[in-house]
Amino acid sequence: MSPATTPAMTTRTTHGGDAPEVDVAALGELLLGRWADVRRQARALAANPDMHKIEGLTHTDHRARVFGQLQVLVREKAVHRAFPARLGGGDDHGGNVAGFEELVTADPSLQIKAGVQWGLFGSAVLHLGTAGHHDKWLPGILSLDIPGCFAMTEIGHGSDVASIATTASYDPDAGQFVIHTPFRAAWKEFIGNAALHGEAAVVFAQLITKGVNHGVHAFYVELRDPATKEFLPGVRNHDDGVKGGLNGIDNGRLCFTNVRIPRTNLLNRYGDVAPDGTYSSPIASPGRRFFTMLGTLVQGRVSLDGAAVAAAKVALQIAITYAGERRQFTAASDVDEVVLLDYQRHQRRLLPLLATTYAASFAHETLLAKFDGVFSGAQDTDADRQDLETLAAALKPLSTWHALETLQECREACGGAGFMAENRFVSLRADLDVYATFEGDNNVLLQLVAKRLLADYSLEFRSMDIGVLARFVAGAAADLTLNKTGLRQVAQFVSDSGNAQKSANALKHEATQRRLLTERVQGMVAEVAGALREAAKLPKDRAAALFNDHQHELIQAAHAHAELLQWEAFTDALGTIEDAGTRRVLARLRNLFGLTLIEKHLDWYLMNGRISMQRARTLGPYINRLLAKLRPHAADLVAAFGYGPEHLRAPIASGVERERQDEARDHYRALRASSGAPIDEKVLLLRKN
Amino acid sequence: MSPATTPAMTTRTTHGGDAPEVDVAALGELLLGRWADVRRQARALAANPDMHKIEGLTHTDHRARVFGQLQVLVREKAVHRAFPARLGGGDDHGGNVAGFEELVTADPSLQIKAGVQWGLFGSAVLHLGTAGHHDKWLPGILSLDIPGCFAMTEIGHGSDVASIATTASYDPDAGQFVIHTPFRAAWKEFIGNAALHGEAAVVFAQLITKGVNHGVHAFYVELRDPATKEFLPGVRNHDDGVKGGLNGIDNGRLCFTNVRIPRTNLLNRYGDVAPDGTYSSPIASPGRRFFTMLGTLVQGRVSLDGAAVAAAKVALQIAITYAGERRQFTAASDVDEVVLLDYQRHQRRLLPLLATTYAASFAHETLLAKFDGVFSGAQDTDADRQDLETLAAALKPLSTWHALETLQECREACGGAGFMAENRFVSLRADLDVYATFEGDNNVLLQLVAKRLLADYSLEFRSMDIGVLARFVAGAAADLTLNKTGLRQVAQFVSDSGNAQKSANALKHEATQRRLLTERVQGMVAEVAGALREAAKLPKDRAAALFNDHQHELIQAAHAHAELLQWEAFTDALGTIEDAGTRRVLARLRNLFGLTLIEKHLDWYLMNGRISMQRARTLGPYINRLLAKLRPHAADLVAAFGYGPEHLRAPIASGVERERQDEARDHYRALRASSGAPIDEKVLLLRKN
Repeated sequence: MSPATTPAMTTRTTHGGDAPEVDVAALGELLLGRWADVRRQARALAANPDMHKIEGLTHTDHRARVFGQLQVLVREKAVHRAFPARLGGGDDHGGNVAGFEELVTADPSLQIKAGVQWGLFGSAVLHLGTAGHHDKWLPGILSLDIPGCFAMTEIGHGSDVASIATTASYDPDAGQFVIHTPFRAAWKEFIGNAALHGEAAVVFAQLITKGVNHGVHAFYVELRDPATKEFLPGVRNHDDGVKGGLNGIDNGRLCFTNVRIPRTNLLNRYGDVAPDGTYSSPIASPGRRFFTMLGTLVQGRVSLDGAAVAAAKVALQIAITYAGERRQFTAASDVDEVVLLDYQRHQRRLLPLLATTYAASFAHETLLAKFDGVFSGAQDTDADRQDLETLAAALKPLSTWHALETLQECREACGGAGFMAENRFVSLRADLDVYATFEGDNNVLLQLVAKRLLADYSLEFRSMDIGVLARFVAGAAADLTLNKTGLRQVAQFVSDSGNAQKSANALKHEATQRRLLTERVQGMVAEVAGALREAAKLPKDRAAALFNDHQHELIQAAHAHAELLQWEAFTDALGTIEDAGTRRVLARLRNLFGLTLIEKHLDWYLMNGRISMQRARTLGPYINRLLAKLRPHAADLVAAFGYGPEHLRAPIASGVERERQDEARDHYRALRASSGAPIDEKVLLLRKN
Repeated sequence: MSPATTPAMTTRTTHGGDAPEVDVAALGELLLGRWADVRRQARALAANPDMHKIEGLTHTDHRARVFGQLQVLVREKAVHRAFPARLGGGDDHGGNVAGFEELVTADPSLQIKAGVQWGLFGSAVLHLGTAGHHDKWLPGILSLDIPGCFAMTEIGHGSDVASIATTASYDPDAGQFVIHTPFRAAWKEFIGNAALHGEAAVVFAQLITKGVNHGVHAFYVELRDPATKEFLPGVRNHDDGVKGGLNGIDNGRLCFTNVRIPRTNLLNRYGDVAPDGTYSSPIASPGRRFFTMLGTLVQGRVSLDGAAVAAAKVALQIAITYAGERRQFTAASDVDEVVLLDYQRHQRRLLPLLATTYAASFAHETLLAKFDGVFSGAQDTDADRQDLETLAAALKPLSTWHALETLQECREACGGAGFMAENRFVSLRADLDVYATFEGDNNVLLQLVAKRLLADYSLEFRSMDIGVLARFVAGAAADLTLNKTGLRQVAQFVSDSGNAQKSANALKHEATQRRLLTERVQGMVAEVAGALREAAKLPKDRAAALFNDHQHELIQAAHAHAELLQWEAFTDALGTIEDAGTRRVLARLRNLFGLTLIEKHLDWYLMNGRISMQRARTLGPYINRLLAKLRPHAADLVAAFGYGPEHLRAPIASGVERERQDEARDHYRALRASSGAPIDEKVLLLRKN
């Protein structure tokens, strides 16, 4: 179903006077972005009740249901987009991810199980294998005749893939690799499809031939006999059982005891072994080879970023609809027409999350375009790949945490009703919880971003001549001294702002927000880089200790960088809006995003003399006024997300609340009109006195 | 099992040199507090596997299991403590709540279902009924022969109990009350035991007699025929189905269509109706009567506060144990002995939560003593009851939110393993989620606290003579002007702190922390009171709008007040510790709590000139050093919580992680000692170059 046909999308609320109006349909198109058609198709598919999560199933029944749903995805041709045209695919990487993301509204288990089969298992065969592998296995993978696993993570190595312990030792006499799990910590863990459905796996293992370990490579390993579904000799598993969410996926452990596979089952795009055991690779550096192989994993991070944004949209569309209807009028007087969303606290709880969701949505569109450029080959230099990695590592942590925060705040803002599974929040939150730690733990990803920020920073250093460097360092030191009291900036701001109004107004300027957000990233990176400068001269252990002493700051700097990226994406999108009313409202929403970021980090701005105390004191009240101005547009702003009742499926957002209130109001009205209404004891007492 | 017999409790870790040591056993006793024996009994009961939650049950099976567990509680005499001695109880209110709290480690559903039966349903009969009611119903309630409901909340009225719409109209001819649900929004909602097990209910309804509505009263209503278990005529229900957690409880809705009950089923301690329909009450004011009746509900808030603290302790004991064992050493070299908890970020994530848990635990002990004083009658003035209400309303929001934050951070800090239900975090988090909005929504409770803070503030106003008032207002205005730039304080701090070390040291002083935390509460209340001063002169709607404009600030002020209460409780407890080593470590932990609070609100301190920019910049590094100092004691500090493996029941905290690592290390050691170890390609390349 096209979102344009849902009633909410065609609404244009009039707020009277010269108040701006939002063109909901046009804004909806902007949000759908470059892959709007694919998103619409995927939403139509996600609207099918057969694809919906049923709450309260046992994990056994849920797993069976989701496996059945994957068959529907195959029938509906929803899983082929990223694969080569010659195998029935669409060579459409961006579209594939966009479609995948929208499945979250049906059931996140369905989404992630599809991700395991086609985004990880199939994708590994596609990107790490070569034509022979494609011909042999991709048709079965696409048709789900071969349900498979992506067996990379081990119990022991955590996020450190280079250190996995499973070995693939080449036996030249047999022309086979021997896949082996040397100890318990080397069991593959949390592997989707490993408990029940997986019949084959791409197994990551240390490739050893002729006494040399060539590092991690991927191997295609059959797990079960396709006829009997029994495990093949040497393969064992363990069922991970019940999880915090995503219980429609059969995660488990896999163990290999000297399992022999043909030499040609090595997915050999980036490294191969000749029959005699000679290793060869198109990439000479083992480090670079490893990162190239892992580079295909970025797709998972990109997808989770988008899925998290979609879940946040659904949550806000439900909670804001409810907050616009729910009122707590009293029996005694039905004149109190205030709905929840009229309360400042409720606005403070929900509208900044709405602004962040817009920012994350626009930022995701940027990421998806970058991803498509690299994976389509259109823009696929080393620099592009590095930028893509960094962008994904920056945005995925923020959006997945944001989704959890939004789902939780929405659930609490709807009180007990928010806790009922039928209203979606708790169910989505449970399922999305793990998005914060899989496909790259959020804290680890932010450290990757920080590393990149530092590298860029020291690259500047290296490209400067000594004179400039000396000046730079001196300048930085001087700056730090000033920041110790921040007197320079304070003096400046104090002199420029005699009245609070003017002071607050400056903060709403795009240029001011950009400057403040940028300065914070630069300032934090410069400060931590300064502190780490001596690390290069220290012995390894002391250098590590020095880095550890600044780990928290490094992660904060990366976080600040990611926030700036979101703000920039929002601002860029704002520049493309033609409708004046929509642009005015969206500019306020962008301001709300920028200013709540500045408010969140106000201590940094104050402590470093970037904002005066006087101006800082105007920020909270200014944000409160902005909330009041945005409140009339809240319904339009969530309507533009374009999800229909078939996606929301929350009774509290169905209009039933309003109906019940109307019924109650009619009851009291009729009662007052009758002679049967009791008098309140309090009123009686007042009359007596 | 007594926690003193678990190995963790008897550990005294030696850290070498003159580093302080924690006396774990003594600290454990301090944490167990005044009702240590009851807690030990309850923990022994909670250790029984029959009482444990089984993950992955359907809600139907879970409900049946929990109902069976309630029978065990009856058999084990764990539910009688709060009831009168003449009915087999113990007249022990504090002990009853302490014991209840500990059940959370077994299964929060069991805890809350017990709370519904004895803490709400039975408690209402006890506190709102009179001797005849006690004799007639309490024996059956205690023995679970009468499973019952506490039917207060309605769909429509939310947190506004005074406005519930269910009516109890007296019919003098029949000598009966007619209980009636006038419209859908008046259905009782989220009622525990309403879907399946409840056979009777205490129903809250507007008492109407002789044409006068005397406000909300409680009525004992039989729901089902005790023999057939069929609903009695006029009673209907609806099953709330699956929830975000607590699925062992059968929540549902109840509707009454002209259900007739005997006049004597009115629980008539605070209001009665004579056979002729004449109303009488020992409390003349309807408002005061209502709040007196509702006062008994505070027990629920007190219990949730303690249960939340217990859940946070379990989570931290699991996560910190794991973080002290889990290391990510690489295959290439096994010399990297760093465990997760050695990472600064990991310390930053977990240790402040540990400090807050200690603070919340000591604060809860204060609340429980206050509760026991009031409910035992030992200290039961109006002022005591008001203080109890305010204290509960302040602490319950912070501890329940803290539990959710802690469970989530622990779950993420344990990565994928944290997401497995067997490791407890996700399961406890799902169950505790609703603690934030039931028994008083956290945001609503904080507004009650804010109201009280304002009342105390304006009481000062009222008791002053005009001259003093004028001076006070002038003084406040002057203070605000100064705070606009904060120059006075900045100047003061800047002059007092030439070096960063001295500046940071000042923050560790108890007096400094107390002053800063207190000043923030006072400053915020004074500021918002100043802004609201004119409300009294405004028309009602404009006054409401003015309050709404400051709602967020009011809630923040209440939050600050509650944080101060926690800090004070921690500091008071610190004063009672005799062992020097324990006191030193706990003082650091209290400092960590105080300083992370100040760091969290650093923007306020800077913006109001209470901390200089220079000193503010020393805070983060100082906290980081404090974390490093506390890190060696982390294991002792969680061991002192005293939960054994039978309470933790988390494989990741069982030692299996260490075993697996030892096995892996032995493997690599043996491999290196053999001639069969492969050479790393990178090493080979280095040798060539």
